[in-house]
Amino acid sequence: MTHLPDPGPQPGVHDLGYARLDTDRLERTGDAEVVYGAGKTPAQIVELLRTLHATHPGHPVLATRLSTSAQELVVAELPAAVVDPVGRTAVLGEPPSASGTVAVVSAGTSDAPVAAEAATTARVFGAGVDLITDVGVAGLHRVMGVRERLAAADCLVVVAGMEGALPSVVGGLVGVPLVAVPTSVGYGASFGGVAALLAMLNSCAPGVTVVNIDNGFGAGVFAARVARRAAPAEVKER
Amino acid sequence: MTHLPDPGPQPGVHDLGYARLDTDRLERTGDAEVVYGAGKTPAQIVELLRTLHATHPGHPVLATRLSTSAQELVVAELPAAVVDPVGRTAVLGEPPSASGTVAVVSAGTSDAPVAAEAATTARVFGAGVDLITDVGVAGLHRVMGVRERLAAADCLVVVAGMEGALPSVVGGLVGVPLVAVPTSVGYGASFGGVAALLAMLNSCAPGVTVVNIDNGFGAGVFAARVARRAAPAEVKER
Amino acid sequence: MTHLPDPGPQPGVHDLGYARLDTDRLERTGDAEVVYGAGKTPAQIVELLRTLHATHPGHPVLATRLSTSAQELVVAELPAAVVDPVGRTAVLGEPPSASGTVAVVSAGTSDAPVAAEAATTARVFGAGVDLITDVGVAGLHRVMGVRERLAAADCLVVVAGMEGALPSVVGGLVGVPLVAVPTSVGYGASFGGVAALLAMLNSCAPGVTVVNIDNGFGAGVFAARVARRAAPAEVKER
Amino acid sequence: MTHLPDPGPQPGVHDLGYARLDTDRLERTGDAEVVYGAGKTPAQIVELLRTLHATHPGHPVLATRLSTSAQELVVAELPAAVVDPVGRTAVLGEPPSASGTVAVVSAGTSDAPVAAEAATTARVFGAGVDLITDVGVAGLHRVMGVRERLAAADCLVVVAGMEGALPSVVGGLVGVPLVAVPTSVGYGASFGGVAALLAMLNSCAPGVTVVNIDNGFGAGVFAARVARRAAPAEVKER
Amino acid sequence: MTHLPDPGPQPGVHDLGYARLDTDRLERTGDAEVVYGAGKTPAQIVELLRTLHATHPGHPVLATRLSTSAQELVVAELPAAVVDPVGRTAVLGEPPSASGTVAVVSAGTSDAPVAAEAATTARVFGAGVDLITDVGVAGLHRVMGVRERLAAADCLVVVAGMEGALPSVVGGLVGVPLVAVPTSVGYGASFGGVAALLAMLNSCAPGVTVVNIDNGFGAGVFAARVARRAAPAEVKER
Amino acid sequence: MTHLPDPGPQPGVHDLGYARLDTDRLERTGDAEVVYGAGKTPAQIVELLRTLHATHPGHPVLATRLSTSAQELVVAELPAAVVDPVGRTAVLGEPPSASGTVAVVSAGTSDAPVAAEAATTARVFGAGVDLITDVGVAGLHRVMGVRERLAAADCLVVVAGMEGALPSVVGGLVGVPLVAVPTSVGYGASFGGVAALLAMLNSCAPGVTVVNIDNGFGAGVFAARVARRAAPAEVKER
Amino acid sequence: MTHLPDPGPQPGVHDLGYARLDTDRLERTGDAEVVYGAGKTPAQIVELLRTLHATHPGHPVLATRLSTSAQELVVAELPAAVVDPVGRTAVLGEPPSASGTVAVVSAGTSDAPVAAEAATTARVFGAGVDLITDVGVAGLHRVMGVRERLAAADCLVVVAGMEGALPSVVGGLVGVPLVAVPTSVGYGASFGGVAALLAMLNSCAPGVTVVNIDNGFGAGVFAARVARRAAPAEVKER
Amino acid sequence: MTHLPDPGPQPGVHDLGYARLDTDRLERTGDAEVVYGAGKTPAQIVELLRTLHATHPGHPVLATRLSTSAQELVVAELPAAVVDPVGRTAVLGEPPSASGTVAVVSAGTSDAPVAAEAATTARVFGAGVDLITDVGVAGLHRVMGVRERLAAADCLVVVAGMEGALPSVVGGLVGVPLVAVPTSVGYGASFGGVAALLAMLNSCAPGVTVVNIDNGFGAGVFAARVARRAAPAEVKER
Repeated sequence: MTHLPDPGPQPGVHDLGYARLDTDRLERTGDAEVVYGAGKTPAQIVELLRTLHATHPGHPVLATRLSTSAQELVVAELPAAVVDPVGRTAVLGEPPSASGTVAVVSAGTSDAPVAAEAATTARVFGAGVDLITDVGVAGLHRVMGVRERLAAADCLVVVAGMEGALPSVVGGLVGVPLVAVPTSVGYGASFGGVAALLAMLNSCAPGVTVVNIDNGFGAGVFAARVARRAAPAEVKER
Repeated sequence: MTHLPDPGPQPGVHDLGYARLDTDRLERTGDAEVVYGAGKTPAQIVELLRTLHATHPGHPVLATRLSTSAQELVVAELPAAVVDPVGRTAVLGEPPSASGTVAVVSAGTSDAPVAAEAATTARVFGAGVDLITDVGVAGLHRVMGVRERLAAADCLVVVAGMEGALPSVVGGLVGVPLVAVPTSVGYGASFGGVAALLAMLNSCAPGVTVVNIDNGFGAGVFAARVARRAAPAEVKER
Repeated sequence: MTHLPDPGPQPGVHDLGYARLDTDRLERTGDAEVVYGAGKTPAQIVELLRTLHATHPGHPVLATRLSTSAQELVVAELPAAVVDPVGRTAVLGEPPSASGTVAVVSAGTSDAPVAAEAATTARVFGAGVDLITDVGVAGLHRVMGVRERLAAADCLVVVAGMEGALPSVVGGLVGVPLVAVPTSVGYGASFGGVAALLAMLNSCAPGVTVVNIDNGFGAGVFAARVARRAAPAEVKER
Repeated sequence: MTHLPDPGPQPGVHDLGYARLDTDRLERTGDAEVVYGAGKTPAQIVELLRTLHATHPGHPVLATRLSTSAQELVVAELPAAVVDPVGRTAVLGEPPSASGTVAVVSAGTSDAPVAAEAATTARVFGAGVDLITDVGVAGLHRVMGVRERLAAADCLVVVAGMEGALPSVVGGLVGVPLVAVPTSVGYGASFGGVAALLAMLNSCAPGVTVVNIDNGFGAGVFAARVARRAAPAEVKER
Repeated sequence: MTHLPDPGPQPGVHDLGYARLDTDRLERTGDAEVVYGAGKTPAQIVELLRTLHATHPGHPVLATRLSTSAQELVVAELPAAVVDPVGRTAVLGEPPSASGTVAVVSAGTSDAPVAAEAATTARVFGAGVDLITDVGVAGLHRVMGVRERLAAADCLVVVAGMEGALPSVVGGLVGVPLVAVPTSVGYGASFGGVAALLAMLNSCAPGVTVVNIDNGFGAGVFAARVARRAAPAEVKER
Repeated sequence: MTHLPDPGPQPGVHDLGYARLDTDRLERTGDAEVVYGAGKTPAQIVELLRTLHATHPGHPVLATRLSTSAQELVVAELPAAVVDPVGRTAVLGEPPSASGTVAVVSAGTSDAPVAAEAATTARVFGAGVDLITDVGVAGLHRVMGVRERLAAADCLVVVAGMEGALPSVVGGLVGVPLVAVPTSVGYGASFGGVAALLAMLNSCAPGVTVVNIDNGFGAGVFAARVARRAAPAEVKER
Repeated sequence: MTHLPDPGPQPGVHDLGYARLDTDRLERTGDAEVVYGAGKTPAQIVELLRTLHATHPGHPVLATRLSTSAQELVVAELPAAVVDPVGRTAVLGEPPSASGTVAVVSAGTSDAPVAAEAATTARVFGAGVDLITDVGVAGLHRVMGVRERLAAADCLVVVAGMEGALPSVVGGLVGVPLVAVPTSVGYGASFGGVAALLAMLNSCAPGVTVVNIDNGFGAGVFAARVARRAAPAEVKER
Repeated sequence: MTHLPDPGPQPGVHDLGYARLDTDRLERTGDAEVVYGAGKTPAQIVELLRTLHATHPGHPVLATRLSTSAQELVVAELPAAVVDPVGRTAVLGEPPSASGTVAVVSAGTSDAPVAAEAATTARVFGAGVDLITDVGVAGLHRVMGVRERLAAADCLVVVAGMEGALPSVVGGLVGVPLVAVPTSVGYGASFGGVAALLAMLNSCAPGVTVVNIDNGFGAGVFAARVARRAAPAEVKER
């Protein structure tokens, strides 16, 4: 059963059979492509990391959503890679020097994987990171205790499941741009993160934006872009 | 077109044609029946208030969800009634002496009608009421500033729309039984109060219960029942 | 890849790496923290029970949602703990003397785990408990047969799945504060407990409040707080 | 702009321009076509009643969902018609002699229009009707008080809004075939009758079937078909 | 941790520890209790069948939703039982002589288990059964070919998944009472049977009622009750 | 408050202030832009029809979703336009000669506006149209009676509300490409056309595609594109 | 337990016990029946392929949704069959010569299985196929680079998950009939393809139709029917 | 009916009876409070604008969601205010000098009100604004034609209804931080903006964040905060 002949390679595309890398993206958007690990075999992930690293040797390459076996193969095959079992990420190549600061804040211990993914992503995409965990709204003294660190950041990533109230509380304390990440942590009528997502979309604190459920990666990319372009303190004060 | 003959009056039922009053309810549950005003004409509401008041002269009678014209007719026809245009309620007869305290807390000015309905209901059902308004989570100093009043109550009714975060914050501050009331205040993906309802059902603060959207009446009944049976301070301290 | 240095321990927080205990909560709300077992390893659950018990030796510590293997490890490692395989709970330390009574009522045999979780929680949080099972609305004589026990309680926890009708029936019989718990028991268009949840939120009996699907723990905490502060019979009758 | 020529009239179809009557249906299903009034002008409704009555003079013709102005025009133009303002129906022609009994049971006064539509429909379709109103589950003595009338019917139509619990209670009392009709009566999270619909679909009483929200007509048709074919008492007892 | 003492056995209830049998139901509703197999162990199912059979030796006992291992244990332990692996049912005891006819019609081969459950249930509850399979709407000649069998029944059970169109087509052909059963057969936006359920609730054929998704049992009970009370042919023709 | 200066007109865009016409679209896709009337004033609609007609004098211009007042102004100001009050459309300019045939089939009289919109659109976009109305599935003889006309078309547009079963029945009769259009006609749990939409997406007849609820325009465009490129009968038979 | 006797075989039906083949369908709709593999055993699939091939030896037979073990048994038992592990299909018999062209376009590598199913189906149903992969909207140059191939097709099948934006972009570039296929590829609030489905139903590009989530088969059938009847190029240009 | 005495004014709160202004917010978050006009009378809006302007004379005050009559009263009473009838906003006081640039991009003419609200908000909150309208994805040349303006901005606000595809297309073109705003523009299964919201949450372009449906205000606040802190071009290039 023959299909039409393929008209040949396209420019800006590197074809691996199971994936076609957009090698142009770095030039177009300033950020290289990333290996999304879900649904890929460990061997494919290792090959993708190698290929992207070879294409852009001066940039770090990030892989996300790695299964335990993928993490193990990366450790074995790519000893230069840094693997984080909490955030399920691997990074090959040195991150650029940090420019601006992203504070990643999470509500409960179950939110740690999403917060770690956001933190690593923001770092790989060029921002410094301040990771602040376990500041749930049912214990306000913890939120109050980190107010200075929150105010010092150039962009906030606030990670919470269940009722998703933390972004509203944080957004009322400081005027820093804030990206909220709902997590699928919850039970019954949390509907896999929908309750937190809706709460964040309806935040009474102005200036809160939201990403998809459990999307620490997207929040990290966005926050790094904001932080990178923030003027250093001495310029802000001019 | 004839239906079967009606087998005659039932005991414990007062038939007005458009409504059959459950005159037994007071004995069965300790609380008299209430006039739910939605969908009833002003004249029907006045007649129902009069009839219930005549049946139980020693108890106050409450009417809720009154339209502006119903409020006006009640004022004209029943000068002894107390009408509250914010909560859209009317009360005919003196409330019992207050037993225990219900604190009704609301997040924004748009939540005022639901909070007022809860407060009036709790008072008519026998509790004292402390009404605390405009303590949204985006301004935590307002919540912190009323911590003592919250802790002093026997039951809390916490009213909030939008992201519905206030019950989680209040529930983390004090250990008083807390009934959360989601309101239909909100826009877009608040879905007429569903976002707040889901957030409250998923509160990370233990011991939060929830009633239907905008149901200040139900929360007031429940809270009054809790407060009424609370031991007075001197007994608690024994 | 270095993150900012951690600014050091926070007061009122005990950091175990995978969890940070809010050791302040007892003072703030009158109730100690609880071990939520879902997503934790058996070893972590045992360590958390031990640590919380050491912090507050005078209070019982509750662990909920324990897997079979977690229950077995608790039995092996903490012989003083009381483990309930139906409600999937463990309690370490003696409950306080009972103050007031919570009646936990359930509709079907499939609702037993949620009812048992509510009952154990209420007992650990200081209330006496009367557990009444298998009183579904399709056999009204069973509901009628327990009317006296219902009326004698200080707070009711009513547990039901499927159409969630039991709280309406019970709420029409007695005027005791009533917390309804929808369970995920059901088929097809029950949508994992949503049908029961919606029915309970729309109950025609006034004074019914609701918690999240299968949340026996939350209902137990709330009901115990209500029952604890209820005046003893002799005071009520003064 | 010309379309293809119409190929001419079809047999068994009476074309009025704005509607094509299925004059065959009586022969095919034993029941004549009905005038669904929603979205039709008063004049169209009058003409449809007249036309159907002329086609089947020996059968009564039913019109449902009539606006106030449609009811008024029917009264003026068709003095032989019986108009029911509660159920918003009109009937032209004498109903057949009653065969079997349908008991129509409703929970609250707001459910009266749907119950009336079901009762009139069942009568027009050939059954006797016993209408039982205001037997909500929050007052069980009212349900208990009509148990004999329920057991004597050949088919039950049970109408309820809000939490939709009445069919479960009735279905547990008697073994008569039961059609449940959810109504759009309710507030907040009743979602226009969805809460009641889901509750009825999940009834724990076996042998409950359900029709669409507010569909008293459909329930009446179904119940009449059941009652009509029921053997008279003397035959059942043979 | 002691709960209040149990006040002792209730009349009309047989307590097996994991289940309390409503031994009164037969008298109240004319039908004995049924063993719902989901969530019960094979040994419990065997014991329940034995106990109910001993209580009502003159009635057949039905068990539904049996796992393969439960079916095997029933075959081994209760050789008198009839086990149907398609419908996943077991019946212990002889069905009563058939009174009236239920036609069970299904659309596709995947709907066979639900249709078989409905057929066996209707037979056990006292009706004769005519099982008609594989008459999907995409092949109308199959529906047309069974028109006589449909018209001869006293009640129809129509089982369909996917778009759930079969009840509308059948309901337009004959005037027999029709119970529609949506099945969870479908893909993507069928949402586990919701598409078929909604279609059936909105059927344009009057007199269609609906049960929960995959609820062949409920449809069978209802249809048998209708068929049982239908007059025999010679009476109808009088 | 000054914004940045506008950089000037873009090629292929005609700016009217309240709308920017994509005058390039005809060249790019073969079809000119259309005036979507919802939310536009009658005067704007008249101006847009005039402007588009002046830009492409050889093509007819279509306006859809016209209010009654917009239809009246078009009749008054553009006497050459053809206005259809049923489909709420206006056409200015002569349609091209018809190429291929689209059969537009609708289930009930309430579906007529959507069917008319589809028919006019298909005609304006270059196809011949055969309009077949009132062939609901509850009267199969009407569907059977038009089988030849269905089979003779190059593309079918099948319009239905309520349970949306007609596309499955038609799709099982003939092998012509079929576009299904769900309408918002229905009550209660039809959810404004969602029930019909889901049914059509789940059709058991292969080769059924679907457009948005009430989107007769989209179906007409698609069907015309299919019919236009269909070979004439003599070519098909070669 | 005896059911009524089966009235014997129906014409146009081949009964295999677990399935009844509609051997008439080829004549009625021009396309033979297909083996839907989900829920069938490998042995049943092999037998169905053999039987259908024997019935219509001149037509290819298609089987879809094959598990790995079914694919293996088909390879072993039917060496003449062509098995595609990406699209999970098997084809037995030679496809007809290609008539017209279907272009199947997909957005991401995860969409490959659905695209392959659509491509194979279109080929078996008689169209030529041009498969174009990995043209996501976040890299517009890839879409632009294939514009000529898109414009040359007779029908487009556009496959995309996540936000489902590709059909709108493609539909704005060319005027070819376009069938959109949402896939279940996505995370969090994609709800298993619902986000893509809704986006496609709301496409701002006119003339986009949609099939069910992951339904590559349905899109392939539809597109082949469109392409088959398209006039060859020389006719179009006459 | 007396409530507890009010404990007196709180610091940082200005009480107007129908609203309590958070006069502290400017100091806490750097941005003054805003007048949300929905649900307020024209007179209240005028008074709130005056009061806030008097409190912070050096800052502009913004009012949003103004009805036509509110706009008229503002024009009459506050001649210094700038009223925008498209975005339904009023501004009293001079915006600060612009720092950084926000590009507000919208898809269709119906999205203009939301885009205007976002643009005015961003300007009042201190950013320069570049407003780019009518760049729908169905006409890609328009998007391509503004690529330079998009790349030059410090933050993008992308406004779209219907399928919500524009943020994915824009996000694939440039690497600037991007806030997507779904609008309620759409029909049928757009569900008042839900389709666009889901599409945006699932964007395949990394670094897209989302706000609530029609929430131009929130997007404007967020984007201004990002743009304000962006380093000027000369610093970025250092």
